[in-house]
Amino acid sequence: MSVIYDRVALIGLGLIASSMFWAMKRGGLAGEVTGYARSEATRATARRIGLCDRVCESAAEAVEGADLVVLAVPVGVMGAVAADIAAALKPGATVTDVGSVKRDVIKSVGPHLPPEVHFVPGHPLAGTEHSGPESGFAELFDNRWCLLVPPPGSDPVAIARLKALWEGLGSNVEEMDPDHHDLVLAVTSHAPHLIAYTMVGVADDLRRVTDTEVIKYSAAGFRDFTRIAASDPTMWRDVFLTNRDATLEILGRFTEELFALQRAIRTGDGAHLHEYFTRTRAIRRGIIEAGQDTDAPDFGRGQKSS
Amino acid sequence: MSVIYDRVALIGLGLIASSMFWAMKRGGLAGEVTGYARSEATRATARRIGLCDRVCESAAEAVEGADLVVLAVPVGVMGAVAADIAAALKPGATVTDVGSVKRDVIKSVGPHLPPEVHFVPGHPLAGTEHSGPESGFAELFDNRWCLLVPPPGSDPVAIARLKALWEGLGSNVEEMDPDHHDLVLAVTSHAPHLIAYTMVGVADDLRRVTDTEVIKYSAAGFRDFTRIAASDPTMWRDVFLTNRDATLEILGRFTEELFALQRAIRTGDGAHLHEYFTRTRAIRRGIIEAGQDTDAPDFGRGQKSS
Repeated sequence: MSVIYDRVALIGLGLIASSMFWAMKRGGLAGEVTGYARSEATRATARRIGLCDRVCESAAEAVEGADLVVLAVPVGVMGAVAADIAAALKPGATVTDVGSVKRDVIKSVGPHLPPEVHFVPGHPLAGTEHSGPESGFAELFDNRWCLLVPPPGSDPVAIARLKALWEGLGSNVEEMDPDHHDLVLAVTSHAPHLIAYTMVGVADDLRRVTDTEVIKYSAAGFRDFTRIAASDPTMWRDVFLTNRDATLEILGRFTEELFALQRAIRTGDGAHLHEYFTRTRAIRRGIIEAGQDTDAPDFGRGQKSS
Repeated sequence: MSVIYDRVALIGLGLIASSMFWAMKRGGLAGEVTGYARSEATRATARRIGLCDRVCESAAEAVEGADLVVLAVPVGVMGAVAADIAAALKPGATVTDVGSVKRDVIKSVGPHLPPEVHFVPGHPLAGTEHSGPESGFAELFDNRWCLLVPPPGSDPVAIARLKALWEGLGSNVEEMDPDHHDLVLAVTSHAPHLIAYTMVGVADDLRRVTDTEVIKYSAAGFRDFTRIAASDPTMWRDVFLTNRDATLEILGRFTEELFALQRAIRTGDGAHLHEYFTRTRAIRRGIIEAGQDTDAPDFGRGQKSS
C-alpha cells in the first residue's frame, strides 16, 4: 500500500487512535503522524511506547500542517477540541472523528471549522473493553465496518481519500446519513451497553448474593455483560447524553417487551416464551452468516470461556 | 484416573450429556455408558457418531443396572422422566441431574425415587449456544464450576463419589442449598438470558432498522446478546417457568435501576451515569481475577470478534 496522507494528526490517544496509529504504520498509509492528548501522563506513555512519530504539547501544534486530523476524544468534548484547533488547520485539510454518535458531533464540530476545511465524520465499529494509549493494536479494524457520515455537499475527493485510509486500516467502509446512523447504533450498541451496565449494577447491589459468588459463578450470560459493562465510563456517558432520543426510544421498546415476557413468566405462558426464544435464534444465525462472529462451539474464545 | 462408576446412564443426549460422555471417555471415568433420548432421530445420530457405548430404546432399559443415572433433559420434564425410570433403578444407585434450576427439580423428581436410591441434584455451570447430540465436546467442563445440591440427610459417600466424577470431568465442585442456588443463578444467568432475548427481539421488531443492517453492523454489545439469545428455547422456557420467583425478583430490580439510568439520560445527569459505569468496571476486574474469563485485548476470541 502507499501513503494516503503525508501528515496525520491524532487528537486524543486512546484505544481507537492508538490502534489507528499502529494500523497506519502496518500499512505504510501515512507519512508523519503527530499526536496530542490532554493528559500529561498519556503523552508521556505515548512517547515511551513509540505511539506517534511526534507527540505535541498542544492540539493546535499537532494539527499544524496536517492533511488529516482525527478527533478521537469523547463525544462530549468534540466541539471544544474543534474550537481549539480551528485556527491552526491547514486549508484543504480533512477533519474526521471516530465518535459513536454522529448527529451531535456534526452539530457541535461543524460550526467551528473554517470553510476551506473538509469535514467527513466517521465511526469505526470496533472496540474492546480496554481504553488508553497502551490498549491499541494494529488489527483492531480488520474486517470491521467503518461508517462515514459526510454532510450534504461534502467534497467527493476528500470522502474517497478517507475511505481509502479506512480500507487500508483493514475496514469495510459504507456511507450513512447521521439520523439513521444514530438509530442503528442505538439498537446494536448503545441500548445493549446500557442494559449490560444495569444488570451488572443490579448484581453489585444484591446483598444476599455476595460479590464473590456472583463473580465466582458468573455463567456465560453474566460474564458477557460484565465485559460490555467494563467499557470506558466517560466515552459511554457522552454517548448516552448525545444520542439521547434514539437510545430512550429503543429502551422504551425494550422495557415494553421485557414486561410482556415477565408477564408470560408470571402467568406460566410457556408457549409465548418458546415462540419468542425460537425467533431470536434466527438473528444469531444471520450474524454468523454475515461473518461478524464465529460459530465455533467455544465461541472461538478458547475452552475457558465457553 | 480410574473408573468411578461401572455403569452410567445418560437420559437425554444434548450438549451437556454428550459432553459428559466424551469427558468420561477422556478420563476413563466410567465402564459402560448407556444413553437414551426421546427422539428417534437423536438416537440415530448418537449411534452414528459413537455417542454412548449403547443407545437404548427406552429410558428404563438405559438405567437398568446403572450405578449412576444422569437426568439431562429440560427441567420441565424431569419429573416425568423420573416417574418413568423409578421402577427400573438399581438399589443403591445414584440419580443426579444437570438442570439449571434446583428447587423445582428436587420437588418434581424427589418423590418418584425409591428410598434405596441416592438423589444428588447437580448443575454444571457450563454451556454454549449450541444444542443437540453433536454439540458436545470433552473440554466443556474444564475449569468450570459444578454445583451439587444434595437434600438434607443425603449419603456422604454418594455425594463424594459424584464429586469425584465431576472433578474427573474437569470441574471444580461446591455444595450449595437449593434456594440460594436458584437466586445466584437468577442473577448470573437467568435474568441476563431473558434480557438478551428481549433486546434481540426488539431489534427484530424494528422496521426502520432493517434486519440486514442490525446484523451487518452488530457491534460488540449486540453481537454478545445474540449469542446468548441463540440458546436452546425449550431449556430456557423451562428455566424461567421453574425459577419464576427468583427471576422475577431480579428482573424487578433490573427495571428499577434501568429506569433510574433512563431518567439520568433524559435529564442529562452525566455525573450519575459516570459514577454508575465506573462502579460496574470493578466487577469485571473481579471476574478476570477469579479466572472465569481472560483479559486479552481481543477477549481471547481472535481478531474478528474484538
